[in-house]
Amino acid sequence: MSRFWSPIVQTLTPYVPGEQPKIDNLVKLNTNECPYGPSQAVLQAIASQTGDALRLYPDPQASALKFAVAKAHGLSPEQVFVGNGSDEVLAHAFMALLQHDAPLLYPDVSYSFYPVYSQLYGVAARQVPLAEDFSVRVDDYLQQGANGGILIANPNAPTGMVLPRSEIVRLLQGNPDSVVIIDEAYVDFGGESAATLVNDFPQLLVVHTLSKSRALAGLRVGYALGHPDLIEGLNRVKDSFNSYPLDRLAIAGAVAAMEDVAWFEQTCQRVISTRERMVAGLQARGFEVLPSAANFVFTRHPGHDGAKLAAGLREQRVLVRHFRKPERITQFLRISVGTEAQTDALLAALDVVLA
Amino acid sequence: MSRFWSPIVQTLTPYVPGEQPKIDNLVKLNTNECPYGPSQAVLQAIASQTGDALRLYPDPQASALKFAVAKAHGLSPEQVFVGNGSDEVLAHAFMALLQHDAPLLYPDVSYSFYPVYSQLYGVAARQVPLAEDFSVRVDDYLQQGANGGILIANPNAPTGMVLPRSEIVRLLQGNPDSVVIIDEAYVDFGGESAATLVNDFPQLLVVHTLSKSRALAGLRVGYALGHPDLIEGLNRVKDSFNSYPLDRLAIAGAVAAMEDVAWFEQTCQRVISTRERMVAGLQARGFEVLPSAANFVFTRHPGHDGAKLAAGLREQRVLVRHFRKPERITQFLRISVGTEAQTDALLAALDVVLA
Repeated sequence: MSRFWSPIVQTLTPYVPGEQPKIDNLVKLNTNECPYGPSQAVLQAIASQTGDALRLYPDPQASALKFAVAKAHGLSPEQVFVGNGSDEVLAHAFMALLQHDAPLLYPDVSYSFYPVYSQLYGVAARQVPLAEDFSVRVDDYLQQGANGGILIANPNAPTGMVLPRSEIVRLLQGNPDSVVIIDEAYVDFGGESAATLVNDFPQLLVVHTLSKSRALAGLRVGYALGHPDLIEGLNRVKDSFNSYPLDRLAIAGAVAAMEDVAWFEQTCQRVISTRERMVAGLQARGFEVLPSAANFVFTRHPGHDGAKLAAGLREQRVLVRHFRKPERITQFLRISVGTEAQTDALLAALDVVLA
Repeated sequence: MSRFWSPIVQTLTPYVPGEQPKIDNLVKLNTNECPYGPSQAVLQAIASQTGDALRLYPDPQASALKFAVAKAHGLSPEQVFVGNGSDEVLAHAFMALLQHDAPLLYPDVSYSFYPVYSQLYGVAARQVPLAEDFSVRVDDYLQQGANGGILIANPNAPTGMVLPRSEIVRLLQGNPDSVVIIDEAYVDFGGESAATLVNDFPQLLVVHTLSKSRALAGLRVGYALGHPDLIEGLNRVKDSFNSYPLDRLAIAGAVAAMEDVAWFEQTCQRVISTRERMVAGLQARGFEVLPSAANFVFTRHPGHDGAKLAAGLREQRVLVRHFRKPERITQFLRISVGTEAQTDALLAALDVVLA
C-alpha cells in the first residue's frame, strides 16, 4: 500500500500463475504446457530473424502473422487480432468490448484470470454456476436477463469439459445483442472450434493461444478472431496501449507455427493419445476423471484429500496444480498431459503417494 | 464504430507510430532506431534459448533481467519493473500511479503517446507549454497548484533538449507528494540519468527502453526504476493484465544487452559523434538545430516549409519524421542519427531538395 498508488491498485487481487520452478528434474505437469518442443520450422524462422534487424521496430500491425492466422482458419486478416499471449488479448477485450452497464456472465469455475480482468477494468460480472456434473449449461446463459457480454472457455479450464459447436450456436442465437467470447485455448485437443462462426455472428470473438497446441508458451503469442468491427475495437485499445506488443522473433516464430500444419496435427494427436492412457491409469487407481477435451485432466480420488495428494506428488518431484478455491473444486487436481515417460513417472509417483 | 464497443473505445484517438516501410533501400531516419545492430552477445544469448525450452512459460517475474538492470544502475532488483517496451511500462504507470483527482502535468510538446494514455485511463491532464526556446522550465511545474503527477521526457522528444540532473532534483524537491516520472528513453546519448535519485525520492519513477541505446527496438523491452512501493504498484497492475509480458528470447537478449557495457558505451559514442557531424552539416545548409542530447535532432529551415522538406526527402528515399501538430512544431523535422553513410545520404538528399 502506498499513497502514490492509483485508488484502483488497492482493490486488485492479481492473478497468480502456476509455479515456474527454477530447479530441474521436476516432472512439470502444472501449467498445461506442450510436452514436446515446437516445430523445427519455428526455430529456424526465429534464427533467421536473430540479427541486425533487431535494431528496427517490428511491424506494428504484425501483418504477416494476421495473414498466417487468417489462412489457418479460412478467414480474412481483417478478422484477426494478435497480441502478447491470449492473456493480453483477453485483457484488451475486457476493456474494448465488455465494459457495459449490464453484467458480464462467465462460469463460477473457469479460468481464474477472468475475475481479475473484471476487477482491473471495473467490469461488473455475474458468475454462473456450473451444473452439478461440472458442465456449462447454455440454458443458464439464455435466462439471465440483459447481459453485458458472455465469456466461456471451451474446453473449460480447469475442468477440461467441452461444449459441442451446436451448443455455442444456440448460445449465440440467444444472445444477439452482446459480445460472446469463446476462449479456445485448449480446443485443439478435442473440441470443435467456433472460429468460422465469426462469419455468421457479428457478436462472436474467438480467442486462441500458441502456448498450448503450438508449444510456444515461452514466445507469448495469442490471437482473436471476429467481425472486423470487433477487431477494430481491439486495435483501438491496443494502439492506445502499446504499438508493438509482438517482437520480431515472436512474429516470425508464430507465422512458422501457424504454417506447419503437419507438426501441429501430429503433436495434438500425440497429446490426445497419451491423455487416454493417463486417464485409464488414473481410473485404474481409483480416481474419478472428468471427461477431458484438453491437454490436462481434472481428477479427484474419493479416498484422498486433493491438497495432500498435490503435496505428496511434489515430494515425488511431480508438479500438478491444486486450487484452494472455490470450495467445490478443492478435492481436485489439474494434471497436464506430459510425455509418455512423464506419464509413467506420474503414475509411479501416485502408486507411492496412494500406498 | 460498433454497438459492441465499450463506451471508452469511441473516445480514443490511438497513437500513430512512425512508418515502418515494407520497401527496402530507404534511408530510414524516422523512428530513432539505433543505426547499428545489437551486441553479438545479445544474438548469442537469443540463439541459446531458441530451442525446446520455448514450450515452457518464461519466468513471470523475469528475475534475471531485473537483476541485470539493477546491477547496471547500482540499484536492487526490488527497485526494478520490466515490461514489453517502455510503452507498456508507461501504460501500466498511468493506470497504477497516475489516476488521481488532481491533473497530471506534462509538456505541451513531448512524446505524443502521453495524451493517448491519459485518454485510455481517464487521467485528467494539463499540458504545460514549453518555453519560447522549447526548453522545459522546472519553475512552471512548481507553480501549478496540486497535481496528480508529473511526466517529463528527458531528453525531451521530439526536441532532443535535456534538463540537467540538478533541475530534476529541484523538480522532485518541489513535488514531494505526487509521482514524478522521468522518461529517459534517450538519456544515454548525452543526458544525466536520474536513476540513482530513486534512492532519495520515493515519488520518482525513471523509465528506460532497450529500443534506442541497446539497439533492440525489435525485441520490445523497457523498464522502470523506483522505490519498491512504486514497483509493487506496477506489478499489481501487470499481474492483473498479463503474467508473462516478456518472452524467453526477450529476457535472454535483454540480460545480455545490459551486461555488454563495452558495446553499449562504444555505440553511444559513435551515435553522438555522428550527431555532431550531422548538426554541423545541417547548420552549414542554413538549418536551425535545437541542441540535442538524443539520437535525433529537431531542426527547421527558415526558408523551407517543414512538410515540403519531409516530402522532398522522401522522394530522395530518405525517411524523416514530420509532425502536423501542434502548430508551433510544424516547421520542424525530427531526423534520427544514422550511420556515417546514412548521414552522407541525408546531406546529399538535402542538397537536392534545397536546390
